[in-house]
Amino acid sequence: MLTYEIDRNSDKPVYIQIYRFIKRDIESGRIKSGEKLPSKRGLADNLGVSVITVENAYSLLTAEGYIRSVPKKGYYAESLPDIPTAGEPLEISAEELPKEEEQVPNMFPFTVWTKIMREELTLKNTSLMTSPAEGVFELRRAIAEHLHSFRNMDADPRQIIIGAGTEYLYILIRILLGDKKVIAVEEPGYSKIANVYESLGMKCRQVSVESDGISIDELVKSQADVVHISPSHHFPTGVVTSVGKRYSLLSWAAGGRYIIEDDYDSEFRLSSRPLPSLFSIDVSDRVIYMNTFSKSLTPTIRISYMVLPPALIEKFRGKIRSFSCPVSTFEQYTLARFISDGSFERHIRRLRRYCKNRREELMKIIAENPLFKGAEVSGSSAGMHCIVKFRTKQSDAELLESVRATGFKADLLREHYRYPPAEDLHTLVIYY
Amino acid sequence: MLTYEIDRNSDKPVYIQIYRFIKRDIESGRIKSGEKLPSKRGLADNLGVSVITVENAYSLLTAEGYIRSVPKKGYYAESLPDIPTAGEPLEISAEELPKEEEQVPNMFPFTVWTKIMREELTLKNTSLMTSPAEGVFELRRAIAEHLHSFRNMDADPRQIIIGAGTEYLYILIRILLGDKKVIAVEEPGYSKIANVYESLGMKCRQVSVESDGISIDELVKSQADVVHISPSHHFPTGVVTSVGKRYSLLSWAAGGRYIIEDDYDSEFRLSSRPLPSLFSIDVSDRVIYMNTFSKSLTPTIRISYMVLPPALIEKFRGKIRSFSCPVSTFEQYTLARFISDGSFERHIRRLRRYCKNRREELMKIIAENPLFKGAEVSGSSAGMHCIVKFRTKQSDAELLESVRATGFKADLLREHYRYPPAEDLHTLVIYY
Repeated sequence: MLTYEIDRNSDKPVYIQIYRFIKRDIESGRIKSGEKLPSKRGLADNLGVSVITVENAYSLLTAEGYIRSVPKKGYYAESLPDIPTAGEPLEISAEELPKEEEQVPNMFPFTVWTKIMREELTLKNTSLMTSPAEGVFELRRAIAEHLHSFRNMDADPRQIIIGAGTEYLYILIRILLGDKKVIAVEEPGYSKIANVYESLGMKCRQVSVESDGISIDELVKSQADVVHISPSHHFPTGVVTSVGKRYSLLSWAAGGRYIIEDDYDSEFRLSSRPLPSLFSIDVSDRVIYMNTFSKSLTPTIRISYMVLPPALIEKFRGKIRSFSCPVSTFEQYTLARFISDGSFERHIRRLRRYCKNRREELMKIIAENPLFKGAEVSGSSAGMHCIVKFRTKQSDAELLESVRATGFKADLLREHYRYPPAEDLHTLVIYY
Repeated sequence: MLTYEIDRNSDKPVYIQIYRFIKRDIESGRIKSGEKLPSKRGLADNLGVSVITVENAYSLLTAEGYIRSVPKKGYYAESLPDIPTAGEPLEISAEELPKEEEQVPNMFPFTVWTKIMREELTLKNTSLMTSPAEGVFELRRAIAEHLHSFRNMDADPRQIIIGAGTEYLYILIRILLGDKKVIAVEEPGYSKIANVYESLGMKCRQVSVESDGISIDELVKSQADVVHISPSHHFPTGVVTSVGKRYSLLSWAAGGRYIIEDDYDSEFRLSSRPLPSLFSIDVSDRVIYMNTFSKSLTPTIRISYMVLPPALIEKFRGKIRSFSCPVSTFEQYTLARFISDGSFERHIRRLRRYCKNRREELMKIIAENPLFKGAEVSGSSAGMHCIVKFRTKQSDAELLESVRATGFKADLLREHYRYPPAEDLHTLVIYY
């Protein structure tokens, strides 16, 4: 039986530790190709962890090709194929592992989802399901109705475009707006956004996020043609863009520029009523609204959408004519019904209750732990993390270490900057 | 009951005609918003068409939002939302309708597919299904095994990248190779390829297709860095690139250029053994092989893949790091099993038999029909169409009309050129 020493104080989740141990053993040949791995329960008992944890580790190993699951038999080690070029070993790097902040609690109602999928497959003549480039109309209508009831937004289903993950939407936007555009992104921010735009050949400018949203002064100076922001809940600071600044942004954009309103975690908000979206107060057709279901449902499903201002729809139809909608029609119909029969709203309500409880637990721990004395907590109005600014003389590295040592999942705010400030910020992002 | 006059001699399929009639009536208000449509059987009887035909029309109307299906009740006309801008009515244009040449016979084994999907959903802990940017390893391995047995290609699963439709692969290639590249495409050819590359900011050069493949002289003169070709079966001419030319192409590419080998319909070939793929005879790592399941299975499923030469894998891992695989993990696992349990090969065998029969029927009609006297038929070794060069004094337009009048589905070869020759080609593409 495999025996590994689990480090419970590590900042690496236990399933990642087990995954790494087994991978190392397969690579070194200690576990031989074709060898049967212990059952999930057996290994869980042996290591003193839950079956779910072993399952997590086995799933990751399966997805990466280290082991193979044989139905009704178990898991077997794979022979590792040799890649002709030397190159680095194909270990998945830390960046590729699901990030803590991206992990939605495992609450997605898979049984409901598969029931609906089965029913749709029986009900419809599946071989005739067609999808225009914009996506299936039933899904676009369901999203429009959801946006109306949930976000008080009036979007016509015909303005809604379905994509496979947010990156795909960035690509469409890049095609729609052309490649000569300069795009402003938030600093600090979600590094992936600038990375993807840059890999598509666009120029990015980092613009500071202030306590009430992105800096308008810097935005003007950046000479950007487009700005990509998350006004309802900025990552990682949690800043909500003020109403005043929303109008300044719209005024900035009115002269032919565009605002991409990324509402990626609006479903997770804890407060009762959000500020109106930029899209809904825009009268000049300058706002592209986008959101994704990979975050609110499960990363297993790659469905995102954007709402184009009417003037861009024509342009879309011209430019994207050659593209097919990248999402399987099966899943489009399933999601349409999942939304329209109320399952999605029920799921969101449960998710929010869960976030609220976790947040309260965290606040209690922070209040009681001397390490946090004098610290300011902010940005916890939505999402699964908050920002803590410490009153300390410790360096950022020391600070992170001592907070992690007490069992928190955290990283440094400075890590979310493209150009981190030279001085220590004494500020952590804590995930719950 | 709705009564429409179906034109059986039209080149528009009957379901498209019914679709257009009903759409027109909804738009004009003759069919009122909320009004119940006749049952599929009822309308089919009334119009003297098959239930499947009405089903096709209703599916298209549903996908486009003109009618709505209410489970166990029937179909209802929708209220048409007003789009704020005037713009053209949102009629789907001819280009957006499924093209004849893209229509795979409706033979996809949906029952097998859904059975596997259900089993996978039960068997696996679905909430833990993860997919790296390259796609789920199980699927990549299944594809590698399929390529080995079916195409005699040795690809390591780790060289295989999963995408959502071929356009998505073009995007990845554009990111991988950079935007300064000039890409050569086939003339005539599948117009979508150049359209998509151009919308991504790449420069395209049209290079003539000769009887043994793309012109090497023109390719050299074009100064292209990359060429996108379909050597096993060119669309629409059906030309198969000769072995000699394959080596010339590899020699052209050896100096740092790339060949994109688009094997889009190799599953449909009728001859026993295809020529080896360029990928498999390439020793300089210059060939990117790609294929799609949307064509061989059903357009409902958007899964495609490419096989990168080892040297590009590292580059991929660096550049595409920020991207997530756009295909739902559910479907990746389902397809993996559909391939590895033999369902895919069984499906292909049935498909080929079907193509072969249709081809023989067509050849018989051609042989007997005086219109085709002296005509040369070519390019029918694979796929669902052939090229017919007529011995006639008719203009191309007249020729097309007279062939369509006898019930053939056809278009002009010249329509597949970006820069059509001035003179008449007397050549049609006939679909069966």
